[in-house]
Amino acid sequence: MPEFRYLTLADEIEHSIRCGTYHAGERLPSIRKWRAKTQLSISTICQALLELERRGMIASRPKSGYFIRPLREQILPPPQTRQTETKPGSVTINNLAFAILEAMGDPEILQLGGSVMSPELMPGKALARCVKSVSQDRLAGLIAVYEHPMGHLGLRRCLAQCYTALVNGIQAEDILITNGCFEAVATCLRAVAEKGDVIVVESPTFPWYLQLIEDLGMLALEIPTDPTDGIDLSALKSALDHNSVKAAVFNSNFQNPLGFVPPDDKKRALVRLFNERQIPIIEDDIYGELYFGRSRPSTLKSFDTRGLVLYCSSFSKTLAPGLRVGWCMPGRFLEKVRRLKLYLSISSPTLTQEAVYRYLSQDVFERHLRKLRTKLQRQMADMTLAVARHFPKGTRISAPQGGLTIWVQLDRRVDSLELFRRALKTGIAVLPGIICANTDAYRHCIRISCGLPFDEYLDNGVRNLGTIIAETISVKPASVGS
Amino acid sequence: MPEFRYLTLADEIEHSIRCGTYHAGERLPSIRKWRAKTQLSISTICQALLELERRGMIASRPKSGYFIRPLREQILPPPQTRQTETKPGSVTINNLAFAILEAMGDPEILQLGGSVMSPELMPGKALARCVKSVSQDRLAGLIAVYEHPMGHLGLRRCLAQCYTALVNGIQAEDILITNGCFEAVATCLRAVAEKGDVIVVESPTFPWYLQLIEDLGMLALEIPTDPTDGIDLSALKSALDHNSVKAAVFNSNFQNPLGFVPPDDKKRALVRLFNERQIPIIEDDIYGELYFGRSRPSTLKSFDTRGLVLYCSSFSKTLAPGLRVGWCMPGRFLEKVRRLKLYLSISSPTLTQEAVYRYLSQDVFERHLRKLRTKLQRQMADMTLAVARHFPKGTRISAPQGGLTIWVQLDRRVDSLELFRRALKTGIAVLPGIICANTDAYRHCIRISCGLPFDEYLDNGVRNLGTIIAETISVKPASVGS
Repeated sequence: MPEFRYLTLADEIEHSIRCGTYHAGERLPSIRKWRAKTQLSISTICQALLELERRGMIASRPKSGYFIRPLREQILPPPQTRQTETKPGSVTINNLAFAILEAMGDPEILQLGGSVMSPELMPGKALARCVKSVSQDRLAGLIAVYEHPMGHLGLRRCLAQCYTALVNGIQAEDILITNGCFEAVATCLRAVAEKGDVIVVESPTFPWYLQLIEDLGMLALEIPTDPTDGIDLSALKSALDHNSVKAAVFNSNFQNPLGFVPPDDKKRALVRLFNERQIPIIEDDIYGELYFGRSRPSTLKSFDTRGLVLYCSSFSKTLAPGLRVGWCMPGRFLEKVRRLKLYLSISSPTLTQEAVYRYLSQDVFERHLRKLRTKLQRQMADMTLAVARHFPKGTRISAPQGGLTIWVQLDRRVDSLELFRRALKTGIAVLPGIICANTDAYRHCIRISCGLPFDEYLDNGVRNLGTIIAETISVKPASVGS
Repeated sequence: MPEFRYLTLADEIEHSIRCGTYHAGERLPSIRKWRAKTQLSISTICQALLELERRGMIASRPKSGYFIRPLREQILPPPQTRQTETKPGSVTINNLAFAILEAMGDPEILQLGGSVMSPELMPGKALARCVKSVSQDRLAGLIAVYEHPMGHLGLRRCLAQCYTALVNGIQAEDILITNGCFEAVATCLRAVAEKGDVIVVESPTFPWYLQLIEDLGMLALEIPTDPTDGIDLSALKSALDHNSVKAAVFNSNFQNPLGFVPPDDKKRALVRLFNERQIPIIEDDIYGELYFGRSRPSTLKSFDTRGLVLYCSSFSKTLAPGLRVGWCMPGRFLEKVRRLKLYLSISSPTLTQEAVYRYLSQDVFERHLRKLRTKLQRQMADMTLAVARHFPKGTRISAPQGGLTIWVQLDRRVDSLELFRRALKTGIAVLPGIICANTDAYRHCIRISCGLPFDEYLDNGVRNLGTIIAETISVKPASVGS
């Protein structure tokens, strides 16, 4: 990617803000002053300021210019690492998680729990045009036969092109289409492990991984994970040395729920640890395209030299979850995954695959993604500030550079499950941290979704949540050591 | 259903033919003679003759009137029952079956193997109009959210209406939408049994049930099954008494591969056997609507008094397999199945469900089914006659009153796998009977699909098959007892 002048300027200004040259609430120097200072064109300077606004660093006030917004770090510290025990255990969260997920499906509820996005963020009209075009030409012939178990060839070719820079030498033949990322991960996990096997996950992790592990009768081995740079490699190494681990399931970028992206060196070291031991990694990269920075984060699969990374993703967070179009690149397990998919549902529907294929063929996906990232970044900044405004002192919060959700660590006196139940009665759903681990380590944490455009209604919801939390704390004595 | 005069007349004439009053090749009395004999109107008599033509009993010859076609029973005897051992066993057909299914997917091959239908038999245009109408109004909103894990409510209501007469008191809340019938059966089986459990199947059975059982590490208990009226109840009872059976998987109507429908009394007795022992039955009724007789055969579920029948079906044989819209009514296992579906793929795609919902709302499904049944009956009659013409003496053949496939029992010297391989080289695929059981009992049988309109090309294919079979027999000595 070429280096744009406006980006360089934006970076410089951001750096100044972070260094304290400018403080929250101050007015930023005018465009004229920046012009004099930098010799850049007015249009370049305007672009830089827009970029900073996009990053949530500054806000424009009509007729007054740009003002510095409070840095998240200045107002709320990041969540803390928990030292959880690293012993494999049977998972027993399904009854609880199922009840919570059920409640989260209610359309009358303000959904701050699920990692879903507002329909306005999706390219619904463009997709509708694609579906219409399918209905007008090849539909009858397309749906009258079973799709190939590997999936729609054109779509797989498009995907192979998308991944050229992310996964070395990937071809359409390496990609298998699934009913969403869930089916991809579930099928890959079944391909490499069975009942009783030990599966490594991060702590906290995406609740559904635990549910899947429980459903398949496997054991979860939870590894302490840092909220800013990911899994603890030495704890992981020790866990691998002391347990017969069959596989790992990792959310590689903008990890759900913490939101971190491990640096490339760490990703490389992580993959090497597993490669050396011949242990497969199931990589769920569903948030990879939702980056707020300048470039897409790397995949674990790009560091895999032995075909042991089974990469999974979908269009559910970028185009439309209701399409249920996901895929996997199972590396050396392709044949096994392919069979499992065949036994499971023969193949995925042709209609949805053809519609997505036509959409991708129009070369508008990247433009849509750019808009989507900008909106998500703004929504997340607004949600973060709202939490800072309305939640009691002592709240800690993650600062992801992409993805859809933030992780909020509350006072230890707060029981997230109790909070979930009380909030639900007032019409708000959050995801209680308790289902993000098989232990009790995250009982005082919640995950909040930033998929909805921020408005007064949402701000009110966050305020109400804050009030409930404050009430909870006030009636309980502070516990020792909290 | 009201009793139509033309049907009564058609039944009477069919009875006369079957009793030998008229013989194959003879000319049927003229319309004028029937009029004098019955006092019915010419139009009623013409309808009766069309009905008989539809049933494959007579054929019209231009300017000569109607001639009696040979009865299938007159030319080829039905296949024989095999006494297979009824002991549970690990299944080991997947490698073989997978290779066979792979070969059957080749579009250059004359597909007499898969139970698929020609696109012309499907209502492609009407479905395309439905898809177009979805693309023009609600699409963006529909696909921007995850569908409810139970599936599209409107579609489930339509299905509940369809099943009113077939399953007592069924409601939309009892029905769960799946990615085709495969996913329905696989999910239901996982809901009631696990690795190591014993599952009852018919012998021969649909190969994919065996593949699924193998994939899930379960054991298959194959029960002798009569080609004309189904499973041997006393063998079944004894097997249930002597084994700890966890579940059964039955294709309830037009069983794949044999094509039989058990009489209602037998279905009732079958369900009672399982009900008494509290053992669940997974009923796959995917062919139930493809009946050639006057009314739809009953479901096993209609005889179930304890919520122990998990009913599965789909639109793959009636509307379009590429839509992947199936469903199940899991009875008392609904909650479990619902969870498994959620862990597996969250939900099925909204677009395809909405399209089918709109199609069903137009009240054209039953008319389409009537046309489809007529065409299939004709295709099956033609295929049966072609097999009779071209296959060597000693061939036995099933005479299903519905469904898509016929079961052909060849001389014992024929190895169906060898036949499959040789036929494939000449561009023809059949399904070798060897993968319809875990034993060797059906090595000399094949299943032939009647899903394609019969023409010279197909007739040639059957002739070539017959030649290969004759060659195989001629080079092998007759085995003792064959």
